[in-house]
Amino acid sequence: MRHHFSSRAASAKRSTIRELLKLTEQPDIISFGGGLPAPETFPHEELAAIAQELLLKEPHNVLQYGTTEGSRTLRTEVAKWLGDQNIHVTLHDLLVTSASQQGLDLICKAFFDPGDVVFCGLPTYLGAVQAFSLFQITKIGVPLEDDGMDIDELESRIVAARREGKRMKGIYVIPDFQNPSGITLSLEKRQRLLEVARAYDLLIFEDNPYGHLRFSGEPIPSIFSMDDEGRTIMLLTFSKVLAAGLRLAVMVARGDLMDVLVRVKQPTDLCTSKFTQMIAARFMQRHGLDRHLAEIRPIYRAKKEAMVAALEKYMPNEEGLRWTNPDGGLFVWVWLPEGVDAEEMLPRAIAHKVAYVPGASSYVDGGGHNTMRLAFSLCALEQIDEGIRRLAEVVTETIASLKAGARS
Amino acid sequence: MRHHFSSRAASAKRSTIRELLKLTEQPDIISFGGGLPAPETFPHEELAAIAQELLLKEPHNVLQYGTTEGSRTLRTEVAKWLGDQNIHVTLHDLLVTSASQQGLDLICKAFFDPGDVVFCGLPTYLGAVQAFSLFQITKIGVPLEDDGMDIDELESRIVAARREGKRMKGIYVIPDFQNPSGITLSLEKRQRLLEVARAYDLLIFEDNPYGHLRFSGEPIPSIFSMDDEGRTIMLLTFSKVLAAGLRLAVMVARGDLMDVLVRVKQPTDLCTSKFTQMIAARFMQRHGLDRHLAEIRPIYRAKKEAMVAALEKYMPNEEGLRWTNPDGGLFVWVWLPEGVDAEEMLPRAIAHKVAYVPGASSYVDGGGHNTMRLAFSLCALEQIDEGIRRLAEVVTETIASLKAGARS
Repeated sequence: MRHHFSSRAASAKRSTIRELLKLTEQPDIISFGGGLPAPETFPHEELAAIAQELLLKEPHNVLQYGTTEGSRTLRTEVAKWLGDQNIHVTLHDLLVTSASQQGLDLICKAFFDPGDVVFCGLPTYLGAVQAFSLFQITKIGVPLEDDGMDIDELESRIVAARREGKRMKGIYVIPDFQNPSGITLSLEKRQRLLEVARAYDLLIFEDNPYGHLRFSGEPIPSIFSMDDEGRTIMLLTFSKVLAAGLRLAVMVARGDLMDVLVRVKQPTDLCTSKFTQMIAARFMQRHGLDRHLAEIRPIYRAKKEAMVAALEKYMPNEEGLRWTNPDGGLFVWVWLPEGVDAEEMLPRAIAHKVAYVPGASSYVDGGGHNTMRLAFSLCALEQIDEGIRRLAEVVTETIASLKAGARS
Repeated sequence: MRHHFSSRAASAKRSTIRELLKLTEQPDIISFGGGLPAPETFPHEELAAIAQELLLKEPHNVLQYGTTEGSRTLRTEVAKWLGDQNIHVTLHDLLVTSASQQGLDLICKAFFDPGDVVFCGLPTYLGAVQAFSLFQITKIGVPLEDDGMDIDELESRIVAARREGKRMKGIYVIPDFQNPSGITLSLEKRQRLLEVARAYDLLIFEDNPYGHLRFSGEPIPSIFSMDDEGRTIMLLTFSKVLAAGLRLAVMVARGDLMDVLVRVKQPTDLCTSKFTQMIAARFMQRHGLDRHLAEIRPIYRAKKEAMVAALEKYMPNEEGLRWTNPDGGLFVWVWLPEGVDAEEMLPRAIAHKVAYVPGASSYVDGGGHNTMRLAFSLCALEQIDEGIRRLAEVVTETIASLKAGARS
């Protein structure tokens, strides 16, 4: 039998990192690897009562096909909730998706032909990189600074791409506590980003899974809410604020942009589960997402503080070794000294019974080999200190053996 | 703001039929339109007990992210169930998808570049046509006979496409009680289809949502089970045999074909809901899918018999007016006399408080204007006679006015 695969299939590789991280599922390994929400935040008793009630009282509704746009009940609740945050939308501006990864798939389908350009952070979310790659989209990376994407660099890369005659479509950005770096885009830079998008007529894909998990500092308005032209598509998800296993998210976009997203969702999966949609809607009606968020933020804050305290306590004092201290989200990002390769270091870490995600796969320019992502979300609080202690040993050993290698 | 859409987005049109059918949600309309499973077949009390128990006893499992391949528990149950049907697979041969429409999306992604050719029935499933169109796939239709696709015609169209230098990838077929026609592919033609696929080195995409809803006649083996080369990908779904709202299906494929499907699923949605997967798995463990199927088949049989009896009772005796009498599934297909356009007739039907799906949208060659699909699944049994009575009036009136028009 000959090879029947599409040319795009060649770009969809099994991640070697992901395979390696499967090893870390052993119970004696402390894993800072997977970007998974804290399971103790899932309001499972409330969800159990709601699920049972829905299945007993309205099975003909929740077990049947739904509309492609998504449940009116859920969209109504989301519109109200966004209104409370000064983001005013109609039901037509909301599309329920099978979590935000599907939102990225729909964006690729709706807006990108092969070779079209998207700009994204260095680093950026690996799942977005994989979606862009599957659709043969050209990814141009822009370095991040402590207050988010370097907008001057963005502009110069846009100008360069234009000079080369590339078809540019948009900018992908995770404004709050970015995956993987934990970095937040400042208010000033959000305004500049919008100006640049306007000047070069680009769309903005604002992926915001973590914005509602802010546990310190002041909230910054979303780019979508500052955009009076409707060129921003915002992705919000229930994965981190309610439960990842529901596979639910909401895309927010205006006018024609939304129309085309709905049209491409239909052949993609017809509709998202009405059952899980109605579970989320009833949870919002009865318990309120804001009240739930107020309960779960301290869980994330405590874990983040434990991780940063442990990094300060255990990590060696080496030039170039530093980390972020985010105000929300799930991740701390570590820059290792130049010459340390986090991917090469991973087997040693696993031998020391600790794991993380090497950063290089989040760089579309082939860089970032000396970076790693530490998720503080999944571990029990009491494991974090011990896990970072082990990791610091690994880092200390690795630096020592590099120095020994350099001397010999 | 300029137009930012992809070239593929232009092929994703909002279906005018679907918009028209939204009108039919009024309670006084008897709709044979949507291809929805009978809601009274949903085992909602069993599912309620299972959902509640899962959320209370293993929330950290079911509310968390899962693997891209799907739950091992569910795949184990499906493998056992298929084994009982003499279809022997390993867990590696199974991929859980967010219903079969996603399976079609993954097939398009994995195997088709724009312009590549798929062969499909005249008529065929509209959702598959939409998925193929979104990926800019060339669809070549092959007429159906009473025992399924005309294999001689298939072969001659393959030869013609090869002569034109087209890249052919596979044949899309719904072997049992096809959507929309209700027609079943005979055993002999399944064998010939496999021979043709082998001779021209094509894949077979065997979409089988209805095979387990056979209520009369003898089961015919699946093409997948007859294929000793691994060129068939089979799509099975829980939508019609358990509940559409769970959005769950299973793709069955061997070796490299499965590897690439898993790789393209990952950037598509990371994973299907572990919660809904575990609901289906527990249902299979506790209640057994075969026992459930034995309970629901009589419901479909009764509805089909009521519909065919009513068609015989009320439809005028006109040359060219005929319908299928399927042994399973959800649909009866009607050929109207030449010259009657089912799409043009639909507003008249809605005025008579009855609805159906015009067949033309299921024809990739622009034909089929005198056909319509009647779903007997959704209506209450007692509505079917009255609905067909109204429809027969509409048909009688339409034929009369055509004859009057021809005379004047």
